[in-house]
Amino acid sequence: MAQLQSVGEFGLIQRIARRLAVRSPQVALGVGDDAALLNLPADEQAVVTKDLLLEDVHFRRAWTSARDLGWKALAVNLSDLAAMGATPLAAFVGLALPADASLEWVDDFYSGMEALADDFGVTIAGGDTTASHSGIVIAVTAVGHVPRAQAVLRSGACVGDVTIVTGTLGDAALGLRWLGEVRGDRPLQPFEPSLLRAHHLPYPRLRAMAAARAAATIHAGIDLSDGLAGDAAHLAEASNVTLELQAEALPLSDDGRAACRALGQDPGHLALHGGEDYELLLTLAEADAPAVVAAIESTGTRATVIGRVIAREAASIILLSAGRRETVLTGGFDHFPSG
Amino acid sequence: MAQLQSVGEFGLIQRIARRLAVRSPQVALGVGDDAALLNLPADEQAVVTKDLLLEDVHFRRAWTSARDLGWKALAVNLSDLAAMGATPLAAFVGLALPADASLEWVDDFYSGMEALADDFGVTIAGGDTTASHSGIVIAVTAVGHVPRAQAVLRSGACVGDVTIVTGTLGDAALGLRWLGEVRGDRPLQPFEPSLLRAHHLPYPRLRAMAAARAAATIHAGIDLSDGLAGDAAHLAEASNVTLELQAEALPLSDDGRAACRALGQDPGHLALHGGEDYELLLTLAEADAPAVVAAIESTGTRATVIGRVIAREAASIILLSAGRRETVLTGGFDHFPSG
Repeated sequence: MAQLQSVGEFGLIQRIARRLAVRSPQVALGVGDDAALLNLPADEQAVVTKDLLLEDVHFRRAWTSARDLGWKALAVNLSDLAAMGATPLAAFVGLALPADASLEWVDDFYSGMEALADDFGVTIAGGDTTASHSGIVIAVTAVGHVPRAQAVLRSGACVGDVTIVTGTLGDAALGLRWLGEVRGDRPLQPFEPSLLRAHHLPYPRLRAMAAARAAATIHAGIDLSDGLAGDAAHLAEASNVTLELQAEALPLSDDGRAACRALGQDPGHLALHGGEDYELLLTLAEADAPAVVAAIESTGTRATVIGRVIAREAASIILLSAGRRETVLTGGFDHFPSG
Repeated sequence: MAQLQSVGEFGLIQRIARRLAVRSPQVALGVGDDAALLNLPADEQAVVTKDLLLEDVHFRRAWTSARDLGWKALAVNLSDLAAMGATPLAAFVGLALPADASLEWVDDFYSGMEALADDFGVTIAGGDTTASHSGIVIAVTAVGHVPRAQAVLRSGACVGDVTIVTGTLGDAALGLRWLGEVRGDRPLQPFEPSLLRAHHLPYPRLRAMAAARAAATIHAGIDLSDGLAGDAAHLAEASNVTLELQAEALPLSDDGRAACRALGQDPGHLALHGGEDYELLLTLAEADAPAVVAAIESTGTRATVIGRVIAREAASIILLSAGRRETVLTGGFDHFPSG
């Protein structure tokens, strides 16, 4: 395999980047100038998000393929756009590569990113490739658009709202635990492929969110990257409300439950604190819940009512389990307990 | 000094980020949600650029203050927007921090970035802070806007154009060389402060470019990050033209000439190949040159005619020195010689 031993090879990498197709007439200028030019629809706002992924902090090269990592690096940013109710348009990729990263790795990385970009008509419109003296660094910025004043914010939750979560919770965390602690020690388990897929290939809930918004007004939303409890707390804090969550309602997959049994893991704890779900937590008027659940499920994504907004000016999370208050968490969510 | 030993301290860093002021009513939502919301003027295009800076690749903590690094990380992105003729609006900062980075360092970093942001009304509108197991990683994305179809591209140079460069060349490279090879071995030299300033605190030529565009049509532009020769070659390649540069015309500062004498460095080589000038190279009709030079100089920035566009469909750089062709460089500019 060709190794990145010389500056000249970064020219080849730039050529890989330049092959990237422009997928939308709204991208007036993509890779190759000092900056990219985007045409946003009239009366829409630009929505911008960015995420930084570092080798051995956020991923390990031994545990993930370059292709999956390219997909995931874009997916986590598109998930942020989904939470805002935005339509994605373009992404920008900063990539720092150590000398032991091969050109094939870079090619596969972009192929994985392009597969997801194709799915949503997103153009990889620019970026920056550089050397790293330590691990791989991936910095993705995604740009989308939303009709003016119609973005879904964390701060819009109202007392009386119900909370809905998309998909199932904890699968990605179980996939990561499987990679870190279990793999190699046991024979392949039937639940393993779907959990590894949840960890490696999160699917941004852009279509689910578009369907939900077409069905009713979504008051508030956040994507779940740190775990339901922590992200629900961010939403509660931004909206200054108390969220009451029903432990028994938290959606787990059949494979997730089977893995919990095999690992001796508490499924409820996992659903609350497992990270990297990249599902959406939404709040909306209770009367709209059936229509929104049906709309999301029409896109092939599960939707579950898991609780409600019970009070204003208290910024806290109450967990109801077997009908009684089990956990009450208030304020100071930067130190929200994870164990 | 407080060290970043725990996840909790990243909450404090996020609070530093949240203190950042929104400097423009066009930033509808800044730090604190899943993404930022920007209002672009009607009939303008979004201009997006990003740069990645890694410790020990692009900077050394021992050689630069956190404040200067915060300034520079934003400046190199605003320089790209200047080259496009864009008006900057917002910046997004990804920051990965090792355990030995202090909270004071982060505070100083943002203070330096804010000083430059204030100068140009730019809002630090979002980002991502994470742990690093190796060095500091800085990923900045800048977003600006430009009237539709009026961006200045690398590809617009016309035969008969003159080329103008802003400021002086090579000062930043001399400053870096001073830091790397000389400092500590000799007493302070009178030219040292201005060269170190050129290296640490590049000043994006946004006002110079705005004045130039108000005076005449600028056909093509690029900012000088890799050195004049390499960046002129990028412009020649994008426009498919031959640029003829006059060696004797390349602008050097008095301090730069003095440092070249002290270091035994060839000033002409330095002006061509010294990196990180963050000046602009522009091409425009010869008849407009006096007005454009005067307009740029009215902003306090030097402007010098250094050559002309002599042929189409040859993508090369010709250097004239003492009236004769000294160097001819053609095609394959990814391998442009630097020595």
